[in-house]
Order: sequence, then structure tokens, then C-alpha cells
Amino acid sequence: MVTREDVGEAAARIAGRVRATPVIEVEPGRTWFKLELLQHTGSFKARGAFNRLLAAAERDGLPSAGVVAASGGNAGLAVAYAAARLGVPALVYVPETAPEVKVRGLRAYGAEVVQVGTVYGEAYEAAVKRAADSGALFSHPYDQPEVCAGAGTLGAELLEQVPGVDTVLVSCGGGGLMAGVAAAVEGSARVVAVEPERAPTLHAALRAGRPVDVPVAGVAADSLGATRAGGIAFETASRTGTPSVLVGDGAIVEARRALWKEHRLAVEHGAAAALAALRSGAYRPADGERVAVVVCGANTDPGDLAGHVVSVGG
Amino acid sequence: MVTREDVGEAAARIAGRVRATPVIEVEPGRTWFKLELLQHTGSFKARGAFNRLLAAAERDGLPSAGVVAASGGNAGLAVAYAAARLGVPALVYVPETAPEVKVRGLRAYGAEVVQVGTVYGEAYEAAVKRAADSGALFSHPYDQPEVCAGAGTLGAELLEQVPGVDTVLVSCGGGGLMAGVAAAVEGSARVVAVEPERAPTLHAALRAGRPVDVPVAGVAADSLGATRAGGIAFETASRTGTPSVLVGDGAIVEARRALWKEHRLAVEHGAAAALAALRSGAYRPADGERVAVVVCGANTDPGDLAGHVVSVGG
Ligand SMILES: Cc1ncc(COP(=O)(O)O)c(C=O)c1O
Ligand SMILES: Cc1ncc(COP(=O)(O)O)c(C=O)c1O
Repeated sequence: MVTREDVGEAAARIAGRVRATPVIEVEPGRTWFKLELLQHTGSFKARGAFNRLLAAAERDGLPSAGVVAASGGNAGLAVAYAAARLGVPALVYVPETAPEVKVRGLRAYGAEVVQVGTVYGEAYEAAVKRAADSGALFSHPYDQPEVCAGAGTLGAELLEQVPGVDTVLVSCGGGGLMAGVAAAVEGSARVVAVEPERAPTLHAALRAGRPVDVPVAGVAADSLGATRAGGIAFETASRTGTPSVLVGDGAIVEARRALWKEHRLAVEHGAAAALAALRSGAYRPADGERVAVVVCGANTDPGDLAGHVVSVGG
Repeated sequence: MVTREDVGEAAARIAGRVRATPVIEVEPGRTWFKLELLQHTGSFKARGAFNRLLAAAERDGLPSAGVVAASGGNAGLAVAYAAARLGVPALVYVPETAPEVKVRGLRAYGAEVVQVGTVYGEAYEAAVKRAADSGALFSHPYDQPEVCAGAGTLGAELLEQVPGVDTVLVSCGGGGLMAGVAAAVEGSARVVAVEPERAPTLHAALRAGRPVDVPVAGVAADSLGATRAGGIAFETASRTGTPSVLVGDGAIVEARRALWKEHRLAVEHGAAAALAALRSGAYRPADGERVAVVVCGANTDPGDLAGHVVSVGG
């Protein structure tokens, strides 16, 4: 469960630790981008990581045994970064199959990296066990109230930056971002969760009436590839009436290219999913609807954007 | 000659045609970045191109014979874009040696590209002659009052975005950007022009007491490689006491990498020069000095930024 009050508390807690990211007006009076890719570590996950650590510190002091995470992606980077800033050790579990570049990235932020098992689930189990055994704080990548509330702080910022915004499009994996933003804007605007057709966790949960496992694949699987929606995500989407719309890999690739060509924003595929819904017509705003698109991460190899340096952008 | 009034008129003229670009606060109370790389065509040059065309249109109507430019870089792209938006033909002269990717880029914006001579100077002469013969409007890349005033509109925006800003760092080639911004902030803040050691046009002009030719080379030569400062640039720098500080290629490369690592901004070398002055210590702000850095262009192949996806950013 995550509420607007939780988000407000998170915002006060992490102020000064995270960047207030800018908004650009892309189509006057119609479309805005929230440039959360400019956040520390290159994604919104820094917000949740700080909120998780600082909320725990308010209760029991900073965890001297450190913080444990399981993620080779943005959540892991964010925990590593926040822990380094707060001066606590970070231990990040990833599968043995994790690419060397991700392991190096985590180490560059000062984390200790532990490689366990061949799939994410094994690394996750080992991380949870380690936290329980050592007394370290476990930071879940999305299904944890303070992680969701932290992510939601970008929604609270957005409400001030785009007065009268009707709809906020967010990319959705395990649903922590969606849940936090839906809570933040509850009563003021609605959120639309955008998921890859090939990783439709929230979609499947809303159909089944509870989180269920789905097979995940596709270009955005590294960031949107949670295999089931979080409990908080499911509960929050149900409570707030947040729908999930699906986009194909082709639309995601197209939106990512357009972000570079028309705006010189180099983003990762997962972050391009939200815009893909708008560009592909998977989400069609009504006349006069004010839509904000959260552009939420840029941990990408920008190399494949070369050769797309120009276009007659709108 | 370019004045604050010229900049004000330019701002009114081009409003709605160009993007108001966001500012981010990078070090609280000390350093801000003006994200002008998010401008149409990926650089500030769109501002000057629109102002040049629209000011001419106010006098004589839109030039039915079109607009002529000489530039394989951002100025050419900007003229091509502005002309396409306003529905007038654009003719862009480049040397026969211009890379195919630049020629294709100009054509993608709808310009007709003419390849003449082996060096820029020959393309430039041919463009000036063509404009004179055909009655088309010639748009100079920097040494033209309306082009400078257009560029200056980003300085006027900045004054509103960062109240009390003391110093604005801008990359400087022929000096149109510097002149426009120096005029825009005259009486409120001062500008520092940053030039590559290997392309020190304004530096040389200020020493010699007039614009003089200098040899140009280095990583930023494609955007900061004018061979002499414009007359307007020299006059404006002299009038406003705008100094030139020099940065080495190593500092430029380092600043460009840092912009990606710490902020996920993929910029071209010329645009990184301004920040390089701050990071390298070539420019040292006083205690309490409020410094804005203009990040002015992103027409870059981002491929060489791969592998720099993380760092403990500040
Ligand atoms: C860039 C990016 N966007 C979206 C998501 C999805 O976030 P969530 O799992 O909270 O739905 C992630 C998760 O790692 C991410 O890194
Ligand atoms: C990205 C970028 N920065 C700076 C400059 C320098 O501008 P000016 O010639 O007005 O000094 C240019 C010129 O093309 C540019 O493209």
C-alpha cells in the first residue's frame, strides 16, 4: 500500500539527495516530457533507494550492516549510489550470467557484487537470505512501500510542473514506478501504465485479479522484465483504476530513435515504452487532454543511435 | 552590433518557433546547466536561423527565392529546418569534402545541398555569390546581427530561469553565441567565452585589437573551427568586457564524458568546451559566484560514449 501522504513524506526525506528533474513542453498545451533520465545514476530508481535507506535510518539509524539488493540493473545501481552517498556498505546480488559491464558498473559506484545462480530468482533468494542472516537492510527493486513512495516523488514534482495535467504515462515493469506515481497524483490526474507486449505483468495481473507469472522477453526486458507485478503495484492499480496498455518492440525501438532524433535524448528501451504508447496510438488522448510522459532512464549503450542525428522534428 | 533590445525583439519574433529549453541546477546555488542541446535540430543555431528569416520577412515578406547558407554543421541544419518550417527553399553550400552523413542530414531537413570547392572558404564564397545573384537571403552562421540576437534569446531565458546569475559560460567559435548572450545579459551578468586552445579566434582578436585569422584544429573544430572571430563578436566582447578562456582538447573530451556519465547528456565536443573550463580550472569562480554553463549542441555520434554508463556523479 502506498498513499499520497507516503509520497509527501518521501519527498521531504530525500530532498537535496536527488535531483528535481526538468519538464519540457513538447506539444504546446498537449504533451510534456518529465526528464527523469537526468536523475542520479540515470534513472528514477535513485529516489526509491534513498527513501528506503533514509526511512530505515529514521527508525533504527543507518543500517551498519549495510544494504542488500538483487539487481543487475537500475535498482542495483541506485542502491549502490545511495549507500555510497550515505556511507553504508552495499551488497548487490546478480546472477553469474550478468554481463561484465553491469558488474563493473555496480563496482564503480562502490558496491560489493555477489554473483549467485544462473537466473535472477536465485540471486534474489540469496540476497534475501543474506539480509536476514546479517541484519542488513533489504531493498526490493519495486515491491516495497518506501521504494514505491520514493519513485512517486517524481509524480509530485510533475503536478507542480504541469498544472492541470490529466494523464501521466509511465513505463511499467514490476510496477513500483506506476504505483508511486499513481499514489502521488491520486485525485488530480490518472496514470496509464505502459508495458511491452512481451512483458505484460500488470496487464496479466489485472486480468487474473491477482499478480501472476508471465513469460518475459523483448528489447526492454532488462528493465521491464519483472516476471510478475508487485503486490503493491496490483493493489494500487486496482484502487486507482490505472490501466495497462501494451506496446510492441517495434514501437519501443521507434520511440527510442525519435527521442534521439527529435530531442537529443539518449534513453534505454524500457524508458522509451511510455512514449511508444503515444506515438504508436496504443494510447490515444482525448481532445484537449494534457499528457505527461515520464522519460525514466538512460542506462543505455548509445552507440546504436549513431546515424540518426537529424530529422524534421515537431 | 547587437543589443539587449535586439535580443528582446528576437525573442518576441521567434516565440513558438523555438523551444524554451530547461535549466538544471547542478550544484545547489552554484552551478546551473542551460540544456540548449534540446533545441530543435540539436543546437542553439535554430534560434538565429528563425530570427534571420522572420526579421527579413517583416521587412520584405518571406524570401520567395529562398535562403542560402554555407555550413555543413549546425548552422546549416538550423537554416534548413527553419526554412522548411516557414515554407521557403533552403540552399546549403558545403565543400566537396563534406562527410556524406552531413550532406544526408541537411537533405533530411529538406535542404538542397550544393558541394563546391575543397575548403569551407570556397563554399562560402559560392554561397554569397549565389544569394547576390538570385535575390535569396544569405544567412551567415555567426556574423550577422539577427543571427546573434537570435542566439541571445537563450541568454534572456536564462536570466529568468536563474535569477541572480553572475556568470554565463559559453562555447565560442565565430562568436555569434557569445555576442548574443553577452548582449542579452548586459547589465545583469557577464559572459565568459570558452575556446579550444587549438581554435582561439576570439582570444587572438582581443590580443590583436581586431579579428585576425588563426589556424584551427582539434576535437571541437567542426563546430568551433571558424578561422576568425566575427566583427560583431569582437565588437561585443570589447564593449562588454567579455574575456576568452582557453581549454585543451583533453579537457573537452573529459567534460563531454562527464556530461554523459553524470547527467546522461550526450553532447558534441564543441558544446562540452564551456563546461571544460569549469572542470579543468581554466575558469575558477569566486566564492558564492553563480555560474550557468550553456550546453549548446548534441549533433554527435554518441557511439564513443558507450562503456561510460556509470560513475559516482556529484
Ligand atoms: C528505466 C526503467 N524504467 C522502468 C522501470 C520499471 O520500473 P518498475 O519495476 O518499478 O515498474 C525500470 C526498472 O528497473 C527501469 O530501470
Ligand atoms: C554546438 C555549437 N557550439 C558552439 C558553436 C559556436 O558558435 P559561434 O560560431 O556562434 O561562436 C557552434 C557553431 O556552430 C556549435 O554548433
